[in-house]
Amino acid sequence: MRKLDILDSTLREGEQYIKTYFTQEQRLMIARLLDALGVAFIEVPSPIASPETHEAVEAICALNLRSKIVAHVRCVEADVQAALETPVYGLNLFYGTSSELRSFSHGRRIDQIKQDAVPLIHAIRAAGRYVRFSAEDAFRSDLVDLLTVFDAVVEAGVDRIGLPDTVGIATPRQVERLLHLISSRYPHVGIEFHGHNDTGCAIANTIGAFEGGADCLDVTVLGIGERNGIASLSGIIAQLYIHYPDLLAGYDLTRLAEIDEYVSQTLGVPIPFNMPITAPNAFTHRAGVHTKAVLQNPRAYEVLDPDDFGLTRHVDVGSRYTGRHAVGHRASTLGLQLTNEELVQLTQALKKHAERGALKSEEVDMFIHTWYQEKGSLVWER
Amino acid sequence: MRKLDILDSTLREGEQYIKTYFTQEQRLMIARLLDALGVAFIEVPSPIASPETHEAVEAICALNLRSKIVAHVRCVEADVQAALETPVYGLNLFYGTSSELRSFSHGRRIDQIKQDAVPLIHAIRAAGRYVRFSAEDAFRSDLVDLLTVFDAVVEAGVDRIGLPDTVGIATPRQVERLLHLISSRYPHVGIEFHGHNDTGCAIANTIGAFEGGADCLDVTVLGIGERNGIASLSGIIAQLYIHYPDLLAGYDLTRLAEIDEYVSQTLGVPIPFNMPITAPNAFTHRAGVHTKAVLQNPRAYEVLDPDDFGLTRHVDVGSRYTGRHAVGHRASTLGLQLTNEELVQLTQALKKHAERGALKSEEVDMFIHTWYQEKGSLVWER
Repeated sequence: MRKLDILDSTLREGEQYIKTYFTQEQRLMIARLLDALGVAFIEVPSPIASPETHEAVEAICALNLRSKIVAHVRCVEADVQAALETPVYGLNLFYGTSSELRSFSHGRRIDQIKQDAVPLIHAIRAAGRYVRFSAEDAFRSDLVDLLTVFDAVVEAGVDRIGLPDTVGIATPRQVERLLHLISSRYPHVGIEFHGHNDTGCAIANTIGAFEGGADCLDVTVLGIGERNGIASLSGIIAQLYIHYPDLLAGYDLTRLAEIDEYVSQTLGVPIPFNMPITAPNAFTHRAGVHTKAVLQNPRAYEVLDPDDFGLTRHVDVGSRYTGRHAVGHRASTLGLQLTNEELVQLTQALKKHAERGALKSEEVDMFIHTWYQEKGSLVWER
Repeated sequence: MRKLDILDSTLREGEQYIKTYFTQEQRLMIARLLDALGVAFIEVPSPIASPETHEAVEAICALNLRSKIVAHVRCVEADVQAALETPVYGLNLFYGTSSELRSFSHGRRIDQIKQDAVPLIHAIRAAGRYVRFSAEDAFRSDLVDLLTVFDAVVEAGVDRIGLPDTVGIATPRQVERLLHLISSRYPHVGIEFHGHNDTGCAIANTIGAFEGGADCLDVTVLGIGERNGIASLSGIIAQLYIHYPDLLAGYDLTRLAEIDEYVSQTLGVPIPFNMPITAPNAFTHRAGVHTKAVLQNPRAYEVLDPDDFGLTRHVDVGSRYTGRHAVGHRASTLGLQLTNEELVQLTQALKKHAERGALKSEEVDMFIHTWYQEKGSLVWER
C-alpha cells in the first residue's frame, strides 16, 4: 500500500486568509486538534516573522505532538537560521520559479535560485533536520527551469520536493501528468502538492497529485488561505474515504467536525454550505424523490456514512417539495396512524402551508399534530 | 469551435438546498439576472409539484427571456402532461438507473424504465418540445444498463441525454472517460452533465465532462442544491475564463457578482469564502511576499483579472504578516514620504501592533498617520 502524509497548513497558509487572527492559545488548540485527528505534518509560519511568531512556534513544538512541526521559510540565510534556532522537525523552503515570480517577486535567475538554495539545504541537513524545497508557482514554471532547480536540490539532499499550484490555475489532468513526470524522475525523494482554489479545483487537483505520485498533500481546515484558499481538510478526507479508504486507517474521523467547528467559531465565519462532510446540511435531504429513497436506505443518496464522522442525517419534511413518504415517516415517528388517503391529504396540506415559507422540524410536528386532531374532530363530528 | 450551453438550475436544484425559500418575485428576479448574464437554459421545477409551482413556471415563461426554460419532470405521464400544459421550451426527464435507485427509489427494472420513458419522449416530441433524458445516478449505474436505456431514448428521439453524478462520487478522470464513451456512441444528440459536491469535486468533474464531450453543463448560483450542492456558476465561469475563454464570448461577466450577491442575500447565507471570483476575498492579498509582488504586477498572484468581472483587488496591509512593500505603498498613497530606514521601523511597529489583532484599512491609515506625526515631532524636538 502506498503511503500518504497529510500536511495541515492552517497555522501558516490559513493565517494568510483575510479573516484569520489566531491568538497563541488558539494556535495551540488547533495544533492539538490536528494531532488528535492524525495529520502527519503541521506547518507553521517562519519564526523570523516576529518575536511573537517565534514564541508561538516554540510553544507548538513544546506540545510534543505526534504530528511533525515544519516551518515555512524563505530561501534566505537569516530566515533559515531563525528557524533552526527553534526545535522544529523540519524546514519547508520555497522559492518562486515561474517567470512571473522571478520578475515581480524576488528578481533572481534560475542559476541564482540554485546558488541560494543549495548551501541552505546543506546547512539544514547538517543540523539534522528534515528539509523540503518547493518550486513556488510550479504550474506556470517552464519545465526546463523546474527540472534544473529540482535536479540541484535533490542532489543537495532534500527529503521532499514540492509543487504548489500557487495561483490556482491547474487542472486535475495537468497536475496528475506533471506529478507523474516528477515522481518518475526523482523516485527517491518525497513529492508534495499544494493547490489553490482560484478556479474551484483545489480538492480535485490535490487528489490528482496523489494519483500522479505525490506522497504528501497540503490542506487547511475549511480550506482557508490567501485569496479564496486551498484544498480543505474535509474535502481531502472525503476523497480518501471514497477512493482510498485504507489510507485513513490511522485517523480519528470523529474529530473532523470538531476541528472544522472550532476554526469556524474562532474566525467568526460559518462552515460553508458546500463543505464536504462538515457542512451543516451535508447529510440533509429535501426533495420528495430523495427523502422517500433515503428513508428506505440512506445509501440511495449518500456515499459517505455520517455515523463514521459522528454526525447525523436529517430528512427535511417541511418544504414545498416534501413528499408523502417523508410526511408519513414523520407522522409514524410521532405515533400517529394514518390511512393512505389521509396521508395524501396531510401531505397536500403541508405542501400548501410550506408555500408561504419552509417549516422547521418543530413547526412540522406542530402542523402534523394539529391536522391530526382536527381530522379526529371531523371524524367525531360525523 | 465547440459549442457549450450552461444550464442554471438554481430555481430547481437550488430550491432543494435546505435554506432556500424563494418567493415568486424572487424567482422572477433570479431568472432575469441569469438571462442578463447569458445562460442558455434555466431549469424550473415540475409544474405538477403544486398550483404555486405551476403558476411560477408560467410566470417565468411569460418573461420571454433569451434563456430557454426547461422543466425537470419525472417519467410519469401526469407529470409530463402538467408540464406540457405550460409554455416551457422543453422537458428534462430523469429516471434512476443505478441498482441503488432502482431498489430504493422507484422499484422499476431496466426494461420497465424503457417502457415508461419511450412513449413519453414520443409525446413530448409530438408536442414540438425539446426533450432531455437523464439517467439519474449514472456514475453508480452498470454500463450495460446505462447504454441499454440510452440506446432506447436516443432511438425515441431525445435532443439530449444527461449523466448526473447524483451522489457526488465521481472523479474528473472517471467523468471524462465515461462522457467520452457516451459522446462517441451517440454523436448526434447533445450530452449534459450534472455534478454533486459530496466529495468536493463538482467543479472539476463538470469541466471534466466538457473535456469528455458534454455540450451542456449544469450549475446553480453559489452551487446550492441537495446536501452540499453542485458545481457553482462562478466556478464554471472561472474554469472557462482560464481554459476556454472563447466559450464566454456571449456572456456579460460583470453580472456574475450581482447574481451571486442577490441569491446570497435572499438566502441569508454569505457567499462562501472559497467561491471562485465572487468570494469577498477572492482578490485579496495578505502575506508580505504576495503583496510585494502584486503591487508590482497583479499577474504575479492572480490568474483572473477582477476588472473583467467589475470587481476590485484589495491589498491587506494591517496583518502581522504584512511587509514593507505593502506598508510603503500605503504610506505613499497617503502622500507620506519615508526613508528606507523609516519604512523598516514603521513596518516593524505595524506588525507589532497587529499581533494584538488584524487592523482594518482605516485603522492602518490612522496608525501610519500617527506614527508619521510622532516621527515628525521627534525630528522637530531634536
